[in-house]
Amino acid sequence: MKFTVLAQDGEARSGVMNLTNGDVKTPVFMPVGTYGAVKGITTNVLSEVKAQIILGNTFHLWLRPGVDIVDKFKGLHRFMGWNRPILTDSGGFQVWSLGKLRKITEKGVFFKSPLNGDSLFLSPEESMKIQKILNSDISMVFDECTDWPISKSQAYDSMQLSLRWAERSKVSFGEKNSLFGIVQGSMFEDLRRESLNGLINLKFDGYAIGGLSVGESKDDMLRILKSLVPIMPQNKPRYLMGVGTPEDLVEGVLNGVDMFDCVLPTRNARNGWLYTKYGNLKIRNARFSSDKAPIDNSCGCPVCGSNFFYSRAYIHHLQKINEMLGSVLTTTHNLWFYLDLMRQMREAIEKKNFSSWRQDFYYKRSVGV
Amino acid sequence: MKFTVLAQDGEARSGVMNLTNGDVKTPVFMPVGTYGAVKGITTNVLSEVKAQIILGNTFHLWLRPGVDIVDKFKGLHRFMGWNRPILTDSGGFQVWSLGKLRKITEKGVFFKSPLNGDSLFLSPEESMKIQKILNSDISMVFDECTDWPISKSQAYDSMQLSLRWAERSKVSFGEKNSLFGIVQGSMFEDLRRESLNGLINLKFDGYAIGGLSVGESKDDMLRILKSLVPIMPQNKPRYLMGVGTPEDLVEGVLNGVDMFDCVLPTRNARNGWLYTKYGNLKIRNARFSSDKAPIDNSCGCPVCGSNFFYSRAYIHHLQKINEMLGSVLTTTHNLWFYLDLMRQMREAIEKKNFSSWRQDFYYKRSVGV
Repeated sequence: MKFTVLAQDGEARSGVMNLTNGDVKTPVFMPVGTYGAVKGITTNVLSEVKAQIILGNTFHLWLRPGVDIVDKFKGLHRFMGWNRPILTDSGGFQVWSLGKLRKITEKGVFFKSPLNGDSLFLSPEESMKIQKILNSDISMVFDECTDWPISKSQAYDSMQLSLRWAERSKVSFGEKNSLFGIVQGSMFEDLRRESLNGLINLKFDGYAIGGLSVGESKDDMLRILKSLVPIMPQNKPRYLMGVGTPEDLVEGVLNGVDMFDCVLPTRNARNGWLYTKYGNLKIRNARFSSDKAPIDNSCGCPVCGSNFFYSRAYIHHLQKINEMLGSVLTTTHNLWFYLDLMRQMREAIEKKNFSSWRQDFYYKRSVGV
Repeated sequence: MKFTVLAQDGEARSGVMNLTNGDVKTPVFMPVGTYGAVKGITTNVLSEVKAQIILGNTFHLWLRPGVDIVDKFKGLHRFMGWNRPILTDSGGFQVWSLGKLRKITEKGVFFKSPLNGDSLFLSPEESMKIQKILNSDISMVFDECTDWPISKSQAYDSMQLSLRWAERSKVSFGEKNSLFGIVQGSMFEDLRRESLNGLINLKFDGYAIGGLSVGESKDDMLRILKSLVPIMPQNKPRYLMGVGTPEDLVEGVLNGVDMFDCVLPTRNARNGWLYTKYGNLKIRNARFSSDKAPIDNSCGCPVCGSNFFYSRAYIHHLQKINEMLGSVLTTTHNLWFYLDLMRQMREAIEKKNFSSWRQDFYYKRSVGV
């Protein structure tokens, strides 16, 4: 893959990644399609909200439908009917989420299937094998995540294990499409630097920041971002994994991050929590039961933006009766909001007015719906 | 409303209804949108599958979101974001479905809300009031449905009550949009004739056949259709309520029916039961788990018909993990199948080759998937 920085404004930058299945403008947000589907959303709608690249979960797809099935389709794109780029995580985060059900060794992770209790094993080599079958445009190294809080020596050991696994991932992966390294080291700035340098020596196509959004404070997260991102390679994409709120994305971009993914816009949508320029909105609240306005008057999404738009009252009604169309519409809106936010940031960076754009963003978000 | 028969082939006929919110070509199938939504389906997708008119349930909409809410939108169209014709049933069938929870009197029906146990009352006047607020293009008279089997004297009494209610419906309804009468009389041909004549005297904009698909045999249904439809007014639309399978639609059209509605294509879709030209298909069946073909190779729907189509294996996977996108895709396919079937029949009637088209339909449906 090729990555080109096109414009820079302070640490914030815009660019383009040329991937096997298409080009991706950065900064970019990647909607999460856990099992090969963004819940409730057709690939047509993904195109309508202008998704450029989506994320698939290696762990979940490995369990269901299984790699043999996806292999028949020569990858996830053809299997799920999406002909643009896909990034897959390595399964490391999901295995970590299993908690006591897993046992971590140098070789890899032994664990029980959360579906049927089967004994399973995941390692750098296994993860690379699966991701190559998924034919991801971007694969991620298999790493160990760490809890927070954690002692520095535990964080060090874990970070070193992740580095050794990163090397095994790289060797095993070979030359197919592209592979990103993941910086670990918990909330310790020197460990983060050491992890980054170790990965740079291994030469990856991009560098991700893992192990954030695991329960630490916003201050801790920003402290790590501010110390780490400026020393990440300029000519490679920087990916902040599993983050976050609209405000998190803005701060990430401000600090030089190029890529994000998060379940927030989609999961919150299903629970009736909607994002707008003027703040968030809980559509199930009784005050919206007869509100004739769209979710956001100024929004151009397929839900708010047409002449014959869907009203807050209608979406309130659908959510109250648990009608799946409610989730389809709210997910569509939230994804548009996130993806349009990224588009606005790319534009502001290109026009070199990111700082005033950011001020305006915070001002409007505080107005309230 | 105006109804024009454009072509006739035997008893089968094609025509057009000019309704308040647009024209509808007949014979037509109306997707069911119980609570102001065809489950999981946006109005965009309804347009993509070429729905001309949809059905809303007065009873359900009365309970949720309630008529006060819909009234704020001056009707169901604006509330649900659908700017084409809508037909609403009267609530009679839903009240009948409540079984022992309701008490039927001359005045109307007293019953307990299935949602919260509240005491509720529905009558011809109430139903007309609600349907006028919903601003349906076509409203239905409030009638009593009868169980099957039932004695002839019970069927007679019920049919007479429905006639008196039809008159009260007509008087109460006034001149807004259009109102259809509903022929009752159970499986007794003479009672059906008497019901029809009573309704014709009251002068409705169209005539529906109610009380079929309530547990009778296919032979009984066809016997009633064959004796009743030919004596229904030629110059008014004929609507067979709550029916049915693709084969039922073909037989209905053969016998001169113009309009149909049924939950089968949508409900079955959610359970993984799919319709194709070559027979039906249970997508959850293991034999589809790695099947790379679309649901139906010859289908032009948004799910099967694009270059980057969704495969049987993918839809199988989505259904197995209960991902709502699975229901969205299967519902889209089944609705397309039903609506395209009607289109084919309109074309065959216009070309005066309905009989050979019908033979071909049955032959292909028996081939098997």
